[in-house]
Amino acid sequence: MRVTTIHAAGDIRLEERPVPVIGAPTDAVIKITAGCICGSDLWPYRGENPITAGSTIGHEMVGVIEEVGSEVRSFKPGDFVIVPFCTCDNTCPNCDNGAHSACVNGGFTTGGQGEYGLVGQADGSLVKTDGMPDPSMIPSLLTLSDVFPTGWHCAVSAGVRKGHTAVVVGDGAVGLCGVLAAVQLGAEKVIAMSRHESRQEIARAFGATHIVAERGADGAKRIKEITDGVGADAVLECVGTDDAMRMAFQAARPGAMVGFVGVPHGVKLPVERMFAKNVGLAGGVAPVRRYLPELLDLVTSGTVNPGLVFDSVMPLADVAEGYRAMDERRAIKVLLQP
Amino acid sequence: MRVTTIHAAGDIRLEERPVPVIGAPTDAVIKITAGCICGSDLWPYRGENPITAGSTIGHEMVGVIEEVGSEVRSFKPGDFVIVPFCTCDNTCPNCDNGAHSACVNGGFTTGGQGEYGLVGQADGSLVKTDGMPDPSMIPSLLTLSDVFPTGWHCAVSAGVRKGHTAVVVGDGAVGLCGVLAAVQLGAEKVIAMSRHESRQEIARAFGATHIVAERGADGAKRIKEITDGVGADAVLECVGTDDAMRMAFQAARPGAMVGFVGVPHGVKLPVERMFAKNVGLAGGVAPVRRYLPELLDLVTSGTVNPGLVFDSVMPLADVAEGYRAMDERRAIKVLLQP
Repeated sequence: MRVTTIHAAGDIRLEERPVPVIGAPTDAVIKITAGCICGSDLWPYRGENPITAGSTIGHEMVGVIEEVGSEVRSFKPGDFVIVPFCTCDNTCPNCDNGAHSACVNGGFTTGGQGEYGLVGQADGSLVKTDGMPDPSMIPSLLTLSDVFPTGWHCAVSAGVRKGHTAVVVGDGAVGLCGVLAAVQLGAEKVIAMSRHESRQEIARAFGATHIVAERGADGAKRIKEITDGVGADAVLECVGTDDAMRMAFQAARPGAMVGFVGVPHGVKLPVERMFAKNVGLAGGVAPVRRYLPELLDLVTSGTVNPGLVFDSVMPLADVAEGYRAMDERRAIKVLLQP
Repeated sequence: MRVTTIHAAGDIRLEERPVPVIGAPTDAVIKITAGCICGSDLWPYRGENPITAGSTIGHEMVGVIEEVGSEVRSFKPGDFVIVPFCTCDNTCPNCDNGAHSACVNGGFTTGGQGEYGLVGQADGSLVKTDGMPDPSMIPSLLTLSDVFPTGWHCAVSAGVRKGHTAVVVGDGAVGLCGVLAAVQLGAEKVIAMSRHESRQEIARAFGATHIVAERGADGAKRIKEITDGVGADAVLECVGTDDAMRMAFQAARPGAMVGFVGVPHGVKLPVERMFAKNVGLAGGVAPVRRYLPELLDLVTSGTVNPGLVFDSVMPLADVAEGYRAMDERRAIKVLLQP
């Protein structure tokens, strides 16, 4: 089968590898209907994370079960499933606590930018649809693998509640899903920080009430104006850089929470400011499985359309171009069709 | 009147100064019944905070109103009041949001280790008792000025809920009040980290179910044992050092919250660990006024006896010895009688 590999910064290849086989009795093999490129894939692509040359890359996918291990009870070949980027047994104490991404039997999905994927802890990790979905639903279903629950986790971690004013730092696909999540969780004002017209449009489609194009001190000033000088009740940091984190804390009102879901790169937390202003921080690797039943309902009922974040669809053969397009911010998020 | 001043590290004096006078129409002058020394007073005493030579020190007090400004409506001379260490109007947007310590008209109380104190925003800041309290109640009432609501804020910030396992890092008066708060908020197991027998005793009196004397990796190991390998649901960091913060994050289970109320000194937050384990952090300067009605009820009803943290009572004249006793950890917390 063909699967995407990374050999060095900027060196993405589509290679022939054996179709994965069931290793553990809890595994499942998935024939991938759609995969995609994640913002976090750009860290190694840009040389900012270590790379094992020739390793597969890609952790988001939806598809049809091809084969299951002997202990898998809830799924059978032919089921259409959402594959969370992090796997879990959904029964350990961490899963019971809602921290599925720290499952004691968990791991990460790989091979998502390919033809077949291998998923561990299939019973605990996967969620299936009622029958085969309409092709028009595939993009939104694919967002359930990572980007939508990650934005959702950011909003939940930021404590977004009815009537809140929420600020979203970052206009990538996660940030846009954070806008969608904040709106769904009842925020009255949702301020998307974005300088890109195409991203602003999606933010508005997701329910953003305000767009702030300024950054840094100017951005903080605009947010103060919008919030009558108080600051935001909840802030979603959806990037992972020190600048973005700094912006998030500048936007927060005293007593607010900042949610964060961007893998931190060079972030130094402003502990003195946090203390003086009582601004907390929570978040991390999204416990996708925890949110899936609720978010799948939102998608299948047509309440939300997170698939809008895919502004580019490419055949798997063009994966290297997909990376270039996202790296150069020509594309928000690229959907890959095997 | 006599009031405590600090001139240099280790140089505490009791000096004659004029009795404070009403400056703003929202002020009140308090004849102090009891004041005390705060753990945070030890930072300048130890030379770890900048000092303005000759400035007054001390911010905790209870006493009787001597005089009020022309706009003070809710209090009159003769009322016995709790004086929060941070003042607030209790009406601004930050107060409405429960962030009273960031009140736009707020400030800090001073002169608490003296005979008379001046309090700003009297109507918003103060809470009075029903009549003059019995002298036996004074220590517990005095804890409402800072240390008990600060421990309470730590537990609230850590998200302590019914059935939780809570760990308290720090066995100073704030940490001990954190134990009391965690118990009152319904924690099933409360683990006090303490190596001092007299402090362990108070922790037990406040409801601690476990004492862990070990620190660092050994302490984390003991907490893992007590929590069946999972870690604590909520951790209260009541010190403010990097070691204590590190300990707090080691004790937390995935998805937990760390509350923090010790003024951070040299703390570097472990953002990568926080992200990987989904362990959040919240807290800061305690919004005392927010909690006062509830905590005053707990005290006056006899439900709790936070005054136990005062293991030493001295006349105001001995204030310098009080500082020495706390600095050398001979005393947990010193109550001063003017």
